[in-house]
Amino acid sequence: MTKIKKIAVFTSGGDAPGMNAAVRAVVRTASYHNLEAFGIYRGYEGMIDGRIKPIAARDVGNIIQRGGTILKTARSMRFKTPEGRKQAYENLKEAGIDALVAIGGDGTFTGAQVFSQEYNIPIVGLPGTIDNDIYGTDYTIGFDTAINTAIEAVDKIRDTADSHSRLFFVEVMGRHSGYIALHTGIGSGAGCIFLPEYDTPLDELVDVLKKANDRDKMFNMVIVAEGNRSGNAMEIANRLNEKYDGYESKVTILGHMQRGGAPSCRDRVLASRLGYHAIEVLLKGESNVALGIINDELCLTPFQEAISQAKKPKSSMLEMARILSM
Amino acid sequence: MTKIKKIAVFTSGGDAPGMNAAVRAVVRTASYHNLEAFGIYRGYEGMIDGRIKPIAARDVGNIIQRGGTILKTARSMRFKTPEGRKQAYENLKEAGIDALVAIGGDGTFTGAQVFSQEYNIPIVGLPGTIDNDIYGTDYTIGFDTAINTAIEAVDKIRDTADSHSRLFFVEVMGRHSGYIALHTGIGSGAGCIFLPEYDTPLDELVDVLKKANDRDKMFNMVIVAEGNRSGNAMEIANRLNEKYDGYESKVTILGHMQRGGAPSCRDRVLASRLGYHAIEVLLKGESNVALGIINDELCLTPFQEAISQAKKPKSSMLEMARILSM
Amino acid sequence: MTKIKKIAVFTSGGDAPGMNAAVRAVVRTASYHNLEAFGIYRGYEGMIDGRIKPIAARDVGNIIQRGGTILKTARSMRFKTPEGRKQAYENLKEAGIDALVAIGGDGTFTGAQVFSQEYNIPIVGLPGTIDNDIYGTDYTIGFDTAINTAIEAVDKIRDTADSHSRLFFVEVMGRHSGYIALHTGIGSGAGCIFLPEYDTPLDELVDVLKKANDRDKMFNMVIVAEGNRSGNAMEIANRLNEKYDGYESKVTILGHMQRGGAPSCRDRVLASRLGYHAIEVLLKGESNVALGIINDELCLTPFQEAISQAKKPKSSMLEMARILSM
Amino acid sequence: MTKIKKIAVFTSGGDAPGMNAAVRAVVRTASYHNLEAFGIYRGYEGMIDGRIKPIAARDVGNIIQRGGTILKTARSMRFKTPEGRKQAYENLKEAGIDALVAIGGDGTFTGAQVFSQEYNIPIVGLPGTIDNDIYGTDYTIGFDTAINTAIEAVDKIRDTADSHSRLFFVEVMGRHSGYIALHTGIGSGAGCIFLPEYDTPLDELVDVLKKANDRDKMFNMVIVAEGNRSGNAMEIANRLNEKYDGYESKVTILGHMQRGGAPSCRDRVLASRLGYHAIEVLLKGESNVALGIINDELCLTPFQEAISQAKKPKSSMLEMARILSM
Repeated sequence: MTKIKKIAVFTSGGDAPGMNAAVRAVVRTASYHNLEAFGIYRGYEGMIDGRIKPIAARDVGNIIQRGGTILKTARSMRFKTPEGRKQAYENLKEAGIDALVAIGGDGTFTGAQVFSQEYNIPIVGLPGTIDNDIYGTDYTIGFDTAINTAIEAVDKIRDTADSHSRLFFVEVMGRHSGYIALHTGIGSGAGCIFLPEYDTPLDELVDVLKKANDRDKMFNMVIVAEGNRSGNAMEIANRLNEKYDGYESKVTILGHMQRGGAPSCRDRVLASRLGYHAIEVLLKGESNVALGIINDELCLTPFQEAISQAKKPKSSMLEMARILSM
Repeated sequence: MTKIKKIAVFTSGGDAPGMNAAVRAVVRTASYHNLEAFGIYRGYEGMIDGRIKPIAARDVGNIIQRGGTILKTARSMRFKTPEGRKQAYENLKEAGIDALVAIGGDGTFTGAQVFSQEYNIPIVGLPGTIDNDIYGTDYTIGFDTAINTAIEAVDKIRDTADSHSRLFFVEVMGRHSGYIALHTGIGSGAGCIFLPEYDTPLDELVDVLKKANDRDKMFNMVIVAEGNRSGNAMEIANRLNEKYDGYESKVTILGHMQRGGAPSCRDRVLASRLGYHAIEVLLKGESNVALGIINDELCLTPFQEAISQAKKPKSSMLEMARILSM
Repeated sequence: MTKIKKIAVFTSGGDAPGMNAAVRAVVRTASYHNLEAFGIYRGYEGMIDGRIKPIAARDVGNIIQRGGTILKTARSMRFKTPEGRKQAYENLKEAGIDALVAIGGDGTFTGAQVFSQEYNIPIVGLPGTIDNDIYGTDYTIGFDTAINTAIEAVDKIRDTADSHSRLFFVEVMGRHSGYIALHTGIGSGAGCIFLPEYDTPLDELVDVLKKANDRDKMFNMVIVAEGNRSGNAMEIANRLNEKYDGYESKVTILGHMQRGGAPSCRDRVLASRLGYHAIEVLLKGESNVALGIINDELCLTPFQEAISQAKKPKSSMLEMARILSM
Repeated sequence: MTKIKKIAVFTSGGDAPGMNAAVRAVVRTASYHNLEAFGIYRGYEGMIDGRIKPIAARDVGNIIQRGGTILKTARSMRFKTPEGRKQAYENLKEAGIDALVAIGGDGTFTGAQVFSQEYNIPIVGLPGTIDNDIYGTDYTIGFDTAINTAIEAVDKIRDTADSHSRLFFVEVMGRHSGYIALHTGIGSGAGCIFLPEYDTPLDELVDVLKKANDRDKMFNMVIVAEGNRSGNAMEIANRLNEKYDGYESKVTILGHMQRGGAPSCRDRVLASRLGYHAIEVLLKGESNVALGIINDELCLTPFQEAISQAKKPKSSMLEMARILSM
């Protein structure tokens, strides 16, 4: 095994708060171990375009609290082709890169795994996505910040819902994953929560609304994950209005603010730990693994397993949410 | 003129952060002047339904920092009818109410003016709406909080826009008024701002985008007031995509979170001053006027004038915004 | 075993964000199981004074997002005496209370344990304190919010530290516990962190400052737990100034803001889960145990063990923090 | 008069949120007028050290939302000497600087005025300080953000004060100026506010506390400006405890977080307007003036007047605060 002297780090796929903290940890830990660190700008696209630049310990000062990613990100179609990956590898070789740290979600890990098998370059992955749906870690970098962003928005919506005694549908991110919706739903005391992983029939919502009405409860919040199978927030709201008169409802789609903002303390600590261990793990000769923290301990999961295994929120938490909202 | 002994306060129309602070100031100042204060719940609707209850100084403790309104609000169709207003007046008489403080927007003032002419009951109004479009005051209660809420959301969106080098359209509230859009636009360094009061041609946006491209500027924010005449955020985004290829744009509609949240310090101070002066002004025999703060001084504007006169943001500020974004 | 029909809940000791969410969960779950819920105001003091009142499901609506505790809290000297506890028990009997849920820290659990042994009344405890130092749970209710509050304050201090190139000492809460200091330190990229559990010599701080100077690093943050054995923030700053010239340092003590504020999403979810399980656990006949969540699973720890066992932050995290700050 | 082709901007004295937005506006407007912009790092100190670098429109992208100042700041003893100023002038001449924009407080304007009289170089000033005590403008850049930071901290302290029924003293910034204390006091419903400009006798505080006790009001907040003539928060708290038993009070000093943080929307708009007009005003041949916004209009005030005239909060607002807190 080649002794590692130069490592490169990049962020890929959707961005998530805490990615900068992870990049900082990777670069600072590399510096501590006397390695040269490089940043690849715009993920796999940048790797193909040769956008590889040295990044020193001092370049990552004062970024730990910043949302977004200083290395930018992009979705890359070209990296899905053997030609694209060949070009990427040649750029890495030319820069003398010995190992890679990839920060992103399942798509990033998929690319990393394929690349790692085609070319003999050690690569490890850090789970960076607000969706929290990556197997091999309790929490992904960005999730905690996203649920706090969502809960703060819902708190404000609650003020106006309460003033007007309205029914409010709030759609949160989560194309395939209901973690954000579940946590935001519990944290806002929502009467009903719609997740992609579980089918919540419309009648359940109607039932909740009726019970609330009986109790003279003035308003109600419904949280809907964007990827909910029976429809997004707007669709559910419309179906409710069609079927049952009398509900003056409003729909808010939180949108892309959930991806940004200063990372929460937990996201900074998680990102720091994972970035720190990434270097240590590479120096021990590991490759083709995703790092994660499970039960407060570092865990390594082969990319193949991280990609193919699923993780979903507990349905018992949904049950609890229902009881607590009445 | 009857000596005023019992006053009632209510909030009406759309809610705004700072309404609670205003209610608190009205009640506390009434108490200081040994008046009995009553709260009318759910605005004019509640006045018709007789939902009038005493409210003591201690009932308004600890609400100054809360968004929404403890008196709730509602839009009332019935108050637009003479029968509805007659019922309302009878309820007030039965409760012995001598004077009213109405907190809301133009709709609230319109109702107050009609009521005040039909029935001989002194009534003054405080400008409570996030839109800032009420004539007779530099700022309305709720505007400052709303622009801060909007700017915080846009800051988060900016993180992800910057990471992905995208074009982002953000729609803010303002059905007839561009104040929120203008301030949010300047405060976020937006490349283009669409207001209801001024026609911004699509070509101007295209021009901004071209110039940005020439400068290698990576992302761009466009702020659109919901009542923009040439279309809301989604419509403008679609027209842009149809006309010109190559813009990967996203649209976020901030929605109802702009109405809620803990009021900013300025909104608390403004609301406190207006609520405080409302009682003093009533005790001096004033009626049928809207209170406002202009140039840091209390101003009284007859409801008729407050309703009929318009106020709009300076177009010079739009010009400045354009220059600063390049 | 008496069938449980009436339960009472109270908060005791220092308050923590999320206590209201826990109270809400207890009351709503009790209601779901057709139990009558009572609130005891001002903790053990209130129990002795007989301040026990029914609390219905609707009384806890809209409190999940509020800091502080609607049941108030107090430190009670009288409860440490047999007479005090006797009076408390008589009040409970008179109200017909069958079981208790105590929310607080070690002091609360100590009182609960003694009480539970003296009188045959089932009582369980929920860990509510910002210090995170309670054994038997990964996180305590309030910790996550506190570290976010601290990190937001430190982010603001960082802006001014960076502008002026100064050395800043920030003191955070934690009389016996360094969790807040450690997480805030890592999350702010602090050059040095002083915890009560580990002795950090002053020379280490000097060393960090020298290295930073060599790198032309402009400013530095030092986080100090209030209970640090070698001195609090002011004391360390003074010793540094005495020993070594040239450090223009400022000291900020974050103080009591760390105890308040709207609970974070995680604190709301944690509090909800624990409050929910508290009722279930009582109905199963448990008593004299503290509830906690360990590895995402509910854990019951006898009060004796929860009180006598200690929990402290990993020293390896301190080591990592040092490396990442250079 | 020399045609202006190169302008330099710097920030000096205490930093304030919004300074970056002002720098951005100066640079972007200069660029629009085809002027070359330079940044002087570390204020007058940097001017003496020759730390003058070109700053392009693109260098100020993405800083509008950031607290602190990218140009850093410093207090300069050397600039108070003729030799220091001579060196500064020579550096400016060498760089070909034709005009200066100085952003800071009274100290900055004093230096600017002296410099402008000694050497024939046009210089204008923008009021940047959180204290809001600069004559010639309704609000200074940074004040609005600071009062929001203070009010958010006080809101959190209020949660714990309310839970424990305590008396809380909160000290805010304002060595000579009571604006922050007054606005924070009104916005938090404080029972008593201590400002540097007005003497509030201790007996008044005692009176407020007695009245509150009579009303069974559970807690009380007292806001103290650090420069209050009769003592800071700690001193007042101690005198109260000595003189009158029975008040369990806590003291929090908010400290330097008040200087930092992302600027509020109003501060960004104010800073943008002032920075924009600075260039326009220089191009019209103005010099030796401070810019300000009074009644929403641009105002120019000769440095001499801006420095010698004072501005202080209205005592009527203190009176109102007292009434509203009971």
